[in-house]
Amino acid sequence: MAFDSVPARDLPLSDTALDQLFTGARTRNAWTDRPVSADLLRKLYDLTKFGPTAVNATPARFVFLTSPEAKARLAPHMAEANRAKTLQAPVNVIIGQDLDFHEHLPVLFPHAPGAKDWFGDETGRRETAFRNCSLQGGYFMLAARALGLDVGPMSGFDAEGVKAEFFAGTAVEPNFIVNLGYGSDENLFPRSPRLGFEEAAAIL
Amino acid sequence: MAFDSVPARDLPLSDTALDQLFTGARTRNAWTDRPVSADLLRKLYDLTKFGPTAVNATPARFVFLTSPEAKARLAPHMAEANRAKTLQAPVNVIIGQDLDFHEHLPVLFPHAPGAKDWFGDETGRRETAFRNCSLQGGYFMLAARALGLDVGPMSGFDAEGVKAEFFAGTAVEPNFIVNLGYGSDENLFPRSPRLGFEEAAAIL
Repeated sequence: MAFDSVPARDLPLSDTALDQLFTGARTRNAWTDRPVSADLLRKLYDLTKFGPTAVNATPARFVFLTSPEAKARLAPHMAEANRAKTLQAPVNVIIGQDLDFHEHLPVLFPHAPGAKDWFGDETGRRETAFRNCSLQGGYFMLAARALGLDVGPMSGFDAEGVKAEFFAGTAVEPNFIVNLGYGSDENLFPRSPRLGFEEAAAIL
Repeated sequence: MAFDSVPARDLPLSDTALDQLFTGARTRNAWTDRPVSADLLRKLYDLTKFGPTAVNATPARFVFLTSPEAKARLAPHMAEANRAKTLQAPVNVIIGQDLDFHEHLPVLFPHAPGAKDWFGDETGRRETAFRNCSLQGGYFMLAARALGLDVGPMSGFDAEGVKAEFFAGTAVEPNFIVNLGYGSDENLFPRSPRLGFEEAAAIL
């Protein structure tokens, strides 16, 4: 039997891995004080960046707030219900979309030199940025779990306030915010129901 | 040394697993004829559904096209450059957002009985649907890779045509389309560059 030095790509991951990523993973509302190193944040970005996006545009931008000073700039813009857990999390990540992502296409999508010009229309560009930044947000959260971290994503914040505080003078707008760290079971909701296959999907 | 029957959640997955999900995975443009069973599509949904979404809204809907008849209904709406590979892929998946997702909140978000009423405004509802459907699209593609499948996501299609053909009379609108199966290396682009950490991220 031949030994294949390349791992078979077409096999499922172990149940333990699937559990860590999906079936056993939970949105966390409280955090242990175990810190998250800058090295680990860089690893997290280096996984996230490889997820597929339209024309390889990778419009997501990630601002990692780790210092008390940076976290204090975010706190006033969080919805009341999200504020305490955001201050408690070791890291808050503002994920935003760069509406000028097309400026990078000559580098990011080199085999189509005219790609930048496909995005002259601002409405279409915002749609592409928002869709693909959100996709990257999904990659980011699963990459975090793949690295053993927990996540707590939130939409409840004042987007204009966060924009003014962190992205003034740029074409980046905030999409959503993720608390990041090693979660504790405190304030863990019971798992909410999901739609059954027939309610959310069809095979034709 | 104590044996812990619960796997440690806070450890990274193996490099082989990270490779399968991120670093070694590639968008596929051609497909082997190895089929994808309905059972596997159900497993794929059952992983995807657990990814976090705002108020557990899970607005993504998945239409799996597996029969030649169903695929023939999609083909005319694909951009010319995407048509041949879409017809060749064993499965095409139309991922759409249900703009009436809030109707399900009494079931999906039971601890906040009034949650449905938070989404009376149509513009805000569309934004929530689009963001969270796209997040779920990210979960979907990584769940596919976790199950050993390959993906080929596409935005190049006539959204109005796909809406009329597959979602007429519903509040679902198409977001993007994914080819699914076991990829071949044919027509594989060289890996395009990614933005470095300093270009796309900051630690404050």
